[in-house]
Amino acid sequence: MVNFTYQNPTKIEFGKGKEELIGTAIAEDNITKVLLCYGSERIKSDGLYEKVTTRLKEKGIAWVELSGIISNPILSKVHEGITIAKAEKVEAVLAIGGGSVLDSAKSIAAGALYHSDVWDFFIGKSVIEKALPVYAIMTLAATGSEMNGFAVITNDTIQQKYNIASLHVYPRLSILNPELTKSVPKNYLAYSAVDIIAHVIEGYLTANVQPHFQSRMVEGIIQTVMETTEILLQNPEDYNARAEFTWAATQALNGVTTAGTNPSVSKSHDRTLTLSTVQHCSRCGFSDCDSCVDDMVSYSKSRTI
Amino acid sequence: MVNFTYQNPTKIEFGKGKEELIGTAIAEDNITKVLLCYGSERIKSDGLYEKVTTRLKEKGIAWVELSGIISNPILSKVHEGITIAKAEKVEAVLAIGGGSVLDSAKSIAAGALYHSDVWDFFIGKSVIEKALPVYAIMTLAATGSEMNGFAVITNDTIQQKYNIASLHVYPRLSILNPELTKSVPKNYLAYSAVDIIAHVIEGYLTANVQPHFQSRMVEGIIQTVMETTEILLQNPEDYNARAEFTWAATQALNGVTTAGTNPSVSKSHDRTLTLSTVQHCSRCGFSDCDSCVDDMVSYSKSRTI
Repeated sequence: MVNFTYQNPTKIEFGKGKEELIGTAIAEDNITKVLLCYGSERIKSDGLYEKVTTRLKEKGIAWVELSGIISNPILSKVHEGITIAKAEKVEAVLAIGGGSVLDSAKSIAAGALYHSDVWDFFIGKSVIEKALPVYAIMTLAATGSEMNGFAVITNDTIQQKYNIASLHVYPRLSILNPELTKSVPKNYLAYSAVDIIAHVIEGYLTANVQPHFQSRMVEGIIQTVMETTEILLQNPEDYNARAEFTWAATQALNGVTTAGTNPSVSKSHDRTLTLSTVQHCSRCGFSDCDSCVDDMVSYSKSRTI
Repeated sequence: MVNFTYQNPTKIEFGKGKEELIGTAIAEDNITKVLLCYGSERIKSDGLYEKVTTRLKEKGIAWVELSGIISNPILSKVHEGITIAKAEKVEAVLAIGGGSVLDSAKSIAAGALYHSDVWDFFIGKSVIEKALPVYAIMTLAATGSEMNGFAVITNDTIQQKYNIASLHVYPRLSILNPELTKSVPKNYLAYSAVDIIAHVIEGYLTANVQPHFQSRMVEGIIQTVMETTEILLQNPEDYNARAEFTWAATQALNGVTTAGTNPSVSKSHDRTLTLSTVQHCSRCGFSDCDSCVDDMVSYSKSRTI
């Protein structure tokens, strides 16, 4: 094993009904105004928006909103969020959604306390020295963004896709209620499974050192995702399978699987970057969605791992 | 899976030479005086004491000492440490050693900011609300104490053995240089292997829910410990085996393996407590050392997991 530093300050609240804690958690941090980020209006029709804003109101927490964040999130939307965050003097960012919303929230959190363009952080022109606290309520399990300091954003003006990595943008709290992912369509569930497997396979295949524990952890994540995806495709109501799938997604990208392995991640990043200007899987970032699903299904059936 | 909360704020610095960072790390936290806790004088003969105190001096960090901490650490020694910590107004506690030293350091850290007897925390008479920051340099891999908020102490007056569990006593930083464990004798290496396996088996066998990922993680830890113990008994110089053993020990008790499994830990705690007044394995807390080793060796040979 090579030398490494590991630190992951994110608090996870996992399980049924945990979203009810959001008002209390934010209030305990003495925050009085947040930027509420989300994607589609689905969170309004399914009651989550109402539930969350009620909890905020109860604790006297004001909010302003940034909606319409899309998959493969874009810089122009991040800029819009930063403008609101600065103008409204929010003290934190609250993401409700999947990895795209959370990645946007992290970027806004860093950009809101920066004097120049947040894109500087993505291209290495500047280093994140501080950020607003980030809170998340996840409605999709896939990207692992809920327990790491990464965010991937596409600059939609110049068609470049880069990431930031900073201890300052780890969510302070991520709420993972597997039930909130029930409305994810089956195709997105399959894309998510591919995404999770891609996250761990990336480090596994490019590792310059192969510690047995980390390798076994990767194999455990892949096996868990394969099994639970099959169950959920048949029965989306299976809470336990959904919970195991959700936790596997988090473990896949919280840094433990690659600790001490010295992966050549640049290889896989390069691969993603070369795909940045083409249409690719909405979450996995690898290739065409339908073939991802086909690959996933045959991969799952073969049970070679 | 059942609902759970997971948070682990400890920063890990893992690898060769990492103990060199200790002065810088403590100075960055604006700490100017520490209580240095250790067990035997071995750290003086092997150069570690000299190395650490040099790093402290370079950063202008003063220290006072508590030495002679024994395996299965005792309350009277913790009291001694608290008395020094209060009298000398130390701002942090630095443990150099294994789990016994670190457990003592955590208890001192909590007791130093408490108005009454620290034993109150162990018997549930009071709850830890604050503690001095704790730093650790580990010279033994076994107990997992380096990345959790537990400490087990025996009250040597009344022969009771209880534990504390608090977010306030998680080490702020734990330095794990596997090379520092090289001087651990072979019998202690075997006891440590049993200890690590006991930690994960405890949750595994008493879990009321068995998420597949967590089960696989447990199996991965056990397999890693079995393999690397065999290697290290043959060749104590094998750095990679020592590193994998060390990291497996940490993973065994940092909370991930039991997250969402609802283990009936009270059963196993009860088992430990009933053994509190008899001579038992110096680290595993289960039973007679020699039989632990025999069990470990035959267990390892059988490779049934």
